[in-house]
Amino acid sequence: MELGDSALTIAINAVMSLTAFFLCLNIIPKFKEMFLQANLCGIDLNKQNKTKIPEALGVVCGAVFLCTMFLFMPIPFYKQLAENTPGKFPHHEYIHFLAALLSICCMVFLGFADDVLDLRWRHKLLLPTFASLPLLIVYFININATNVIMPKQLRWLVGEDLNLGPLYYLYMGMLAVFCTNAINIHSGVNGLEVGQSCIISISVLIFNFTEMQGGNRLGHVFSIYFMMPFLAVSAALLIHNWYPSRVFVGDTYCYFAGMTFAVVGILSHFSKTMLLFFIPQVFNFLYSIPQLFHFVPCPRHRLPRLKPDLGKLDISYSVFKTGSLSRLGQFFIQLYSFFGVISVQQGVGEHGQYTQVNNFTLNNFMLRILGPLHERTLVIILLFIQIIFSGVAFIIRYQLAKIFYDH
Amino acid sequence: MELGDSALTIAINAVMSLTAFFLCLNIIPKFKEMFLQANLCGIDLNKQNKTKIPEALGVVCGAVFLCTMFLFMPIPFYKQLAENTPGKFPHHEYIHFLAALLSICCMVFLGFADDVLDLRWRHKLLLPTFASLPLLIVYFININATNVIMPKQLRWLVGEDLNLGPLYYLYMGMLAVFCTNAINIHSGVNGLEVGQSCIISISVLIFNFTEMQGGNRLGHVFSIYFMMPFLAVSAALLIHNWYPSRVFVGDTYCYFAGMTFAVVGILSHFSKTMLLFFIPQVFNFLYSIPQLFHFVPCPRHRLPRLKPDLGKLDISYSVFKTGSLSRLGQFFIQLYSFFGVISVQQGVGEHGQYTQVNNFTLNNFMLRILGPLHERTLVIILLFIQIIFSGVAFIIRYQLAKIFYDH
Repeated sequence: MELGDSALTIAINAVMSLTAFFLCLNIIPKFKEMFLQANLCGIDLNKQNKTKIPEALGVVCGAVFLCTMFLFMPIPFYKQLAENTPGKFPHHEYIHFLAALLSICCMVFLGFADDVLDLRWRHKLLLPTFASLPLLIVYFININATNVIMPKQLRWLVGEDLNLGPLYYLYMGMLAVFCTNAINIHSGVNGLEVGQSCIISISVLIFNFTEMQGGNRLGHVFSIYFMMPFLAVSAALLIHNWYPSRVFVGDTYCYFAGMTFAVVGILSHFSKTMLLFFIPQVFNFLYSIPQLFHFVPCPRHRLPRLKPDLGKLDISYSVFKTGSLSRLGQFFIQLYSFFGVISVQQGVGEHGQYTQVNNFTLNNFMLRILGPLHERTLVIILLFIQIIFSGVAFIIRYQLAKIFYDH
Repeated sequence: MELGDSALTIAINAVMSLTAFFLCLNIIPKFKEMFLQANLCGIDLNKQNKTKIPEALGVVCGAVFLCTMFLFMPIPFYKQLAENTPGKFPHHEYIHFLAALLSICCMVFLGFADDVLDLRWRHKLLLPTFASLPLLIVYFININATNVIMPKQLRWLVGEDLNLGPLYYLYMGMLAVFCTNAINIHSGVNGLEVGQSCIISISVLIFNFTEMQGGNRLGHVFSIYFMMPFLAVSAALLIHNWYPSRVFVGDTYCYFAGMTFAVVGILSHFSKTMLLFFIPQVFNFLYSIPQLFHFVPCPRHRLPRLKPDLGKLDISYSVFKTGSLSRLGQFFIQLYSFFGVISVQQGVGEHGQYTQVNNFTLNNFMLRILGPLHERTLVIILLFIQIIFSGVAFIIRYQLAKIFYDH
């Protein structure tokens, strides 16, 4: 495959992505009634109007994405397919497409099952791990690069590069689980899940097009093939999911998006750069840890709550009996208070026996700093932060890396 | 891969299948409550007791099957993986596993979406077609045998074999759609969907083990790898789905089963023999055509109906205004009456304006011949017919074929 060829296939992929965009834009409203009848719906907790809103419409995006990719898959191989000389077909390239789509399809399925059935945590961790197995095997047989290049400053200690071996596979497996869940927990205001995914995919595309002339051309072209249709179906969903949401995206979308990023990062061999585009998600995850692991009580919903009189969103709280926390819980509260990243109020409740802290999410963190905000304003600010950190990611990747690595 | 190797990997596959069987047997009841809460349930129309029964439990089987296969996939390649010499890995064999699992995963997902959302017919036809695309491409690049060997008696006319070219791909695409729907429409009494699938998979396994020493060894070993775990998860489901059903299997199971058979038939290159194991399903499909294409009115449920006083099942009817049928509808009624395969009663209803015919399914056909039967008796008879026709299939494959082909 030459560069001229990839330009043509990328153009075809772009046309198909555009078609997928209009298809999604058009069919999502048509599916609304079907989802309501299946009782796949929820009430927007942050609206005064309590109508039922169809949930898990991400499944439509996932299905359109899969169909687009099934149709597109033969195209990069059109020359070899036209010749079809036995033994000449580049199985090792085609296998990347199959493994990637298998993992993504599994996650769309798992996400939808989760939306319908409310799966337990163990299923949510087990199934992505299984689903990433074929991916890791393909990485093993085709790439199997498990060494991490060391920063100049550390080479006296461990040498030029460090071979992580099986640990590298563990890291990639965890990447798949992390990406799928990271988008899921950075949510709760209209348009945030899809909005952040759109920004991440645009950042990845900018990175791919920048690097396409470099050494890992095949990897970046592969990433473009997946990111363009993904961005297309996501953008269509965002239009329907934007404030005030007419549809919700569901866990389905979060899992679909997360796995697509993980797959592309792994198979195109830029998983560390991919993680750089997840800085807000990493912060949100680290900040959330005390609640995710239940050191501090975690209510079912941690999203900001509406102040009906103001028409604005304000911090939501976790309330617990004062002194009822475990040592680790107390430690985290003290640690976070020390750095001034949470609000703690003691002596609340009828007899003053309770303590309340804001829920540990980036949403609440922003509301703590900026005060009550309109929902649309909050989501715009959060997406703006995502863009800023994409810029930071590029600075780290291209400028800061010079300090640590020879280019 | 040598034969000794396949014996070992088949043994490992058997052990994993057994584990999958016990896992399914154990977890299916545990998921019941979750399905009831998600309102994924139905009432057994043929029971006097109208309790809600969880539906679509086939999704648990599908998930366990996929996980088993993800874990098993590396094993046939353990030698090559251990060496991992670049360029030596048999991508062309591994690609079969990925393409097969991708198609199966898509169908489990589609089936589950259908159970939850009640999809339209166009989705049910479109999505399997898309899902079989990667499969057909893999067939094209790896096998691409599109010629059909002609019976001796016809060779003077068309030569020794006839190259169907693209028509052969159309046939394979339609096979996938046929298999998924054929099992779905041969249903309606407790245990029938899973029971028939178990018998078909056992027949396929007998065929594979018989042929394993022959020319297409890799194909038959590949089929065994898929059929054993499939049989295992199906058998576990059958135990819970047997009369009186504690769980229903849903479209999910039918699609999962149908696509697994289609995939194995296509990639192991014995799709015509596979079709021979579907004789009762083919009969049921042909018999159903007038109702499937709405030439004769097709009620929502065509399953036999319970006669509460007898505690037995009897024929269910389609009722329509006399003379309201289209020409094609009238033609089919006359054709079927001529061959004596339907019961027609005219002059029913209050003013005698209506005609009733039995619904065109194999179930009703059997009840017409044998009279009202207990549900368990009917399903045992239907499964017995399936076994008889598996025997017929073997006779056609091994005896009758001698008349038409040189072996």
